[in-house]
Amino acid sequence: MKISTLSIGDELIYGQVTDTNAGTIASLLLAEGVRIQRHLTVGDSEQDIVEALNDLGRISQMVIVTGGLGPTADDLTSLAAARAAGRHLVISEEARSHVRMMSGKLETLIVCPLNEKQAMIPSESTLIPNPTGTACGFHLEHNGCLMFFMPGVPSEMTVMLRETVIPFILERVPRKRVIRSVSLNLFGPCEAEVDELLLGIARSEHGLNLGICVTFPWMKVTLRAEADNDDAAAALLNPAVCFVRERLGEYCFSSGDVSMYDAVASLFRAGGLTLSLAESCSGGLIAKRITDISGSSGYFCEGVVTYSNSAKMRLLGVPADILNNCGAVSSECASAMANGVRLSSGSDLGLAVTGIAGPDGGSEEKPVGTVFISLAAPDGCRTQRFQFGGNRDQVRTLTAWTALDWLRRYLLKRV
Amino acid sequence: MKISTLSIGDELIYGQVTDTNAGTIASLLLAEGVRIQRHLTVGDSEQDIVEALNDLGRISQMVIVTGGLGPTADDLTSLAAARAAGRHLVISEEARSHVRMMSGKLETLIVCPLNEKQAMIPSESTLIPNPTGTACGFHLEHNGCLMFFMPGVPSEMTVMLRETVIPFILERVPRKRVIRSVSLNLFGPCEAEVDELLLGIARSEHGLNLGICVTFPWMKVTLRAEADNDDAAAALLNPAVCFVRERLGEYCFSSGDVSMYDAVASLFRAGGLTLSLAESCSGGLIAKRITDISGSSGYFCEGVVTYSNSAKMRLLGVPADILNNCGAVSSECASAMANGVRLSSGSDLGLAVTGIAGPDGGSEEKPVGTVFISLAAPDGCRTQRFQFGGNRDQVRTLTAWTALDWLRRYLLKRV
Repeated sequence: MKISTLSIGDELIYGQVTDTNAGTIASLLLAEGVRIQRHLTVGDSEQDIVEALNDLGRISQMVIVTGGLGPTADDLTSLAAARAAGRHLVISEEARSHVRMMSGKLETLIVCPLNEKQAMIPSESTLIPNPTGTACGFHLEHNGCLMFFMPGVPSEMTVMLRETVIPFILERVPRKRVIRSVSLNLFGPCEAEVDELLLGIARSEHGLNLGICVTFPWMKVTLRAEADNDDAAAALLNPAVCFVRERLGEYCFSSGDVSMYDAVASLFRAGGLTLSLAESCSGGLIAKRITDISGSSGYFCEGVVTYSNSAKMRLLGVPADILNNCGAVSSECASAMANGVRLSSGSDLGLAVTGIAGPDGGSEEKPVGTVFISLAAPDGCRTQRFQFGGNRDQVRTLTAWTALDWLRRYLLKRV
Repeated sequence: MKISTLSIGDELIYGQVTDTNAGTIASLLLAEGVRIQRHLTVGDSEQDIVEALNDLGRISQMVIVTGGLGPTADDLTSLAAARAAGRHLVISEEARSHVRMMSGKLETLIVCPLNEKQAMIPSESTLIPNPTGTACGFHLEHNGCLMFFMPGVPSEMTVMLRETVIPFILERVPRKRVIRSVSLNLFGPCEAEVDELLLGIARSEHGLNLGICVTFPWMKVTLRAEADNDDAAAALLNPAVCFVRERLGEYCFSSGDVSMYDAVASLFRAGGLTLSLAESCSGGLIAKRITDISGSSGYFCEGVVTYSNSAKMRLLGVPADILNNCGAVSSECASAMANGVRLSSGSDLGLAVTGIAGPDGGSEEKPVGTVFISLAAPDGCRTQRFQFGGNRDQVRTLTAWTALDWLRRYLLKRV
């Protein structure tokens, strides 16, 4: 059974927007043991869409299409689907009432006559309900290939996929084999170092497969097992995961979808310690990451973003001496910031960063990428200088990740 | 001239990583008047890569391939390229010295024997230098189709694309027509409202093309002109852009690549005002966005992330009365936070947000998504309640964008 996906949109093929729908479809289907073979993208051209549907229809038994079902004139997917399948466009009364109902329901959305265009679908096709938006999807069969069409808005597409398309597919896919996978997430080493750590482990053997994937600033080692049933897949996968995890050591901060932020959050919840932040070059990024996690108010007390020297003195009590003699980007200033925020907030841990994110502000002694991280804790204060590479955004990201990794390693020893 | 792109990687076809290379290639080529027709993605399977290269080779005159050139065992692109083109893999001495040189140069990278695998390329192919990483690219011609192969690491790929591949392509593409485009970026209205604003404007006429693209939380209206030369394209495009921009009114916050953050930064630089922030539910996100911009230290004084009530009282002087009687999520608290941070920091503007990002913490009176934004300025303090939809991440993003849009609209009147 070959399944392909097709994403449609000028904004995608021109590179103005990054397509996330193909990835969502692939990962949700993979979790059910169903693989996507090919993913294709074309622009809002009727001819290109028709050719893409014909080509994918020839090599696949199912094609999942997203995009081009909106209300505006450049949304051509219904038209192209009808042409590719040799059908007419007809008004679906069901889709029309849906569009009307949703237009009234979404308060921010003015009822527009153009939304009515969304009620036109190819003849002999079946509606796919869209509980969260105006554009219904539809599916049809052409020359033995089942084609699903959904709108491109990711949140709407995902609901339709989960509620209608995936159950529909699973009824029709002969699932003899199940695929289960576990990803181990690493921060710190380079790809070749990871390869060295894994030396001697086969990449593909006895239904087990191992892959490495670099996703700045972290990395994933994914183990995938294919077997006749869940138990057999687990029997293959679990010991392999344990073995690889041991090899990776403390570089491994989590497995699966657990982000570095989640991992740190779990340790905070388990350890009962509280945290406050003093950020300079990271400008609120660490606070943002910490508070991305719901429930972070349980351990995160407060953060200050002290860009100016006066704010460092007033809010954190950094002595003027340090700022004058060592500078705002110095080990002394980082320690004073960490101790200062810990003291004033009364939290258990005070984490501070100060550095030069660039592109301006570097010097020979302290080039762009120079960052000091300091962690003040009940058992003392530890400060270290780092030299990060990359542009402003990369330096800030590496700063935040390294700071969070410090928290993780500190909390690991205390829990 | 048909040009296609091919991205290779299990992490892409399984949806674990979102491909950005295809978009980078498309947008950089589009800026030169060259369109990508199709974009295809396949996994790390030798067979799938060979078939993809054959299929794209048949319908395209050029194929730009990224991914699968790394040092590890699951990187199969060189092997598949050789098979598709009927060549052998040979060791390139030039690539080998490059790998050795780069392994030494990148300080964080331990010299690994596995990197030597990256020196194997198909016979009769030409190296594409990689100034920032170990994996060289290569290009070869097969059955009249020119195929370029580059590593998948986005930063490395982009340099190779700009420095070698695009100049090489432009020498060979018959560029009779130039394509120029301008995007107008909007925040606030829904897609159908934008369509109403643009009512009566043709979507495609006389070499001009208009497209609408939704990119949460903002939207883009893109005008594209195709003409014989730059002057003719500009003569088509410029009056159309002015006309459409007027229709869109104050919803339009910028054009082209200028983000909302850039737009706000420019207004701050022009207006000479300074800003401090007090964030609760946005948890540092607004400070992060403001300090994303290099040079923000010129107008951004400080930010505080006050999650706890005690921090709101101590750092911002919010009266205990307000917290007890109105609650931390209230118009009164937002105003007190904005006035408090403005006063204590001595900056011209104090912006505060407080709300319930969810998924927990909502009530009937103040459901998840309830957010108060307050702007304290020399001419008074303005506070408003919003009800945002979506999950925690979406509520926080809409909060930050709406707050930045407030700053933009306020500064626009003062510059």
